[in-house]
Amino acid sequence: MLPSTLDELIEALRCLPGVGPKSAQRMAYHLLQRDQRGAGRLASALQKALVVLRHCERCNAFTESQVCQRCASSQRDASLLCVVEMPADLAMIEQTHAYDGLYYVLMGRISPLDGIGPRELKLDRLLARATDGVVREVILATNFTNEGEATAHTISELLNARGIRASRLSRGVPVGGELEHTDSGTIAQALFERRAL
Amino acid sequence: MLPSTLDELIEALRCLPGVGPKSAQRMAYHLLQRDQRGAGRLASALQKALVVLRHCERCNAFTESQVCQRCASSQRDASLLCVVEMPADLAMIEQTHAYDGLYYVLMGRISPLDGIGPRELKLDRLLARATDGVVREVILATNFTNEGEATAHTISELLNARGIRASRLSRGVPVGGELEHTDSGTIAQALFERRAL
Repeated sequence: MLPSTLDELIEALRCLPGVGPKSAQRMAYHLLQRDQRGAGRLASALQKALVVLRHCERCNAFTESQVCQRCASSQRDASLLCVVEMPADLAMIEQTHAYDGLYYVLMGRISPLDGIGPRELKLDRLLARATDGVVREVILATNFTNEGEATAHTISELLNARGIRASRLSRGVPVGGELEHTDSGTIAQALFERRAL
Repeated sequence: MLPSTLDELIEALRCLPGVGPKSAQRMAYHLLQRDQRGAGRLASALQKALVVLRHCERCNAFTESQVCQRCASSQRDASLLCVVEMPADLAMIEQTHAYDGLYYVLMGRISPLDGIGPRELKLDRLLARATDGVVREVILATNFTNEGEATAHTISELLNARGIRASRLSRGVPVGGELEHTDSGTIAQALFERRAL
């Protein structure tokens, strides 16, 4: 017995990840009751984003131009290409100020359960990018989850077959981490990948 | 170094309750990458809702007309007025099929921490509604939280001062509940409000 406009809004909010029927209802009431200005701003931000944003031709991240600022910059080392799953991962690496190469954003990971394989990830686009003759090394910085590991593995095989060097972020005990509070899988990996001093 | 359109979308998504910077980012990428159709539908649902929905003059719930279907119905007992905090509470009571009176939706609760007092809740509108000469009893069905209890208490005092009968949902052990798994506060209340058989 809800008005249909309200029903439609609640239903539309459910397209947001992690939002079920209850939260969608709560969000709708919050927007209508307490934040109509925010709701209006959200509606126009969505519409503008849908029109204006596209994928950078080189790194696949979202941008308003054909090639994003970072890829167009002459300050970055174009021989290094770091592959991440999502733009948020790219932001984390940028925050370290320890990397001055370029990026490729997969916008996902290989995930058979969600029906996302090499084709859905458009890995051929990444391969074309990595074989441009300038890239000397591809650093695979996907997550260390099962899906991220599988993605890195798949990409490294494709790159090796084309004679491109692939590397992977190291695994081990976090900086500042205490062994007592580190899970045994990580410790085992840190032992296995121990470095000579 | 995110494109400003994307920044604006992420910022706009933060108006949703319970959505912080990380979830807002995740939502934005999800919408742009995986569900552009959903994003477009959300934008138009928001805009339509902002234009079309208003508060029912009688029960304060959202409606597309001046008076909502329920308040306009002749099938309901107009002498009973059930006061709830939110439309979701109303829906829960309707689901019981145990109530055929009318409702008044506060659209909130007294919450000094959020700066919401009797004035912000517009309790004078509720009082005007309850003193229309037809209502014989006001059932206070606010939540049994501290804020809901305070709200019920405040309203009952205002109603009593105007000679209107107020009642409150009973508290006790849930139907089907086992004492072993019921919190002691509820059991204490169930003892205190025990009924003669």
